Amino acid sequence: MYIIIVGCGRLGSVLSMELSDAGHNIAVIDSDSKRLEALGNGFNGLSVKGIEYDSNVLREAGISRADYLLSLTSDDNLNIMVSLIAKDCFKVPRVIARVNEPSKKSVYELLFIETINPTELISYIIKSKIEGDRK
Amino acid sequence: MYIIIVGCGRLGSVLSMELSDAGHNIAVIDSDSKRLEALGNGFNGLSVKGIEYDSNVLREAGISRADYLLSLTSDDNLNIMVSLIAKDCFKVPRVIARVNEPSKKSVYELLFIETINPTELISYIIKSKIEGDRK
Repeated sequence: MYIIIVGCGRLGSVLSMELSDAGHNIAVIDSDSKRLEALGNGFNGLSVKGIEYDSNVLREAGISRADYLLSLTSDDNLNIMVSLIAKDCFKVPRVIARVNEPSKKSVYELLFIETINPTELISYIIKSKIEGDRK
Repeated sequence: MYIIIVGCGRLGSVLSMELSDAGHNIAVIDSDSKRLEALGNGFNGLSVKGIEYDSNVLREAGISRADYLLSLTSDDNLNIMVSLIAKDCFKVPRVIARVNEPSKKSVYELLFIETINPTELISYIIKSKIEGDRK
């Protein structure tokens, strides 16, 4: 699979490395070159420094042949913007965005952007542990 | 259940509200009063402002009768310290700490602290989605 990862923070960098190790073709985009450099020599994919929602940057990352785009920055507005561009302008088959602020979830839903919500997931897992103990 | 939540950030505040709504007794500790105030009037639990690893603060939060302590701050060192104090000094039956920096996981393991690792979990879920698509 050709996968574009937007945002090379903690989650983006871990996923870039793991998906690359699993044999996928990865392109990572971040506006901060330090974050991209932190991937180190072990990373076999493409690193692109630039404004994440810039069409030229997305093209440089190979968006026209991408099977997936994962927008994983800590900025919901940025994730929403990049996801919409990927989905509506470049017709990327699957786009998944990270929800940071739970209250923003409805905006993603309104725009039909598939999401992954760390706070909701972790909260669900901890609640399941506690309820499991109570039984 | 009597549950102490350390750290009233995004995850801590969502869990405080949800577990309180589910009928548990919740005490939340944070050194930043603004974060505690942000819980609003809908929160029925106890809010304690203070240094998270201070024994007096933990006692004020009712640690002697706690069934659970969840240390969910974004600071791994703080989570480790609070978890050790809860587990070893106050004998809290179950202590779970959030791992922020994946490289710190080994420290938690070394100290036998049960953890929840958002980055690892989200990474696992996204990889499963992608592998599911490939099949």
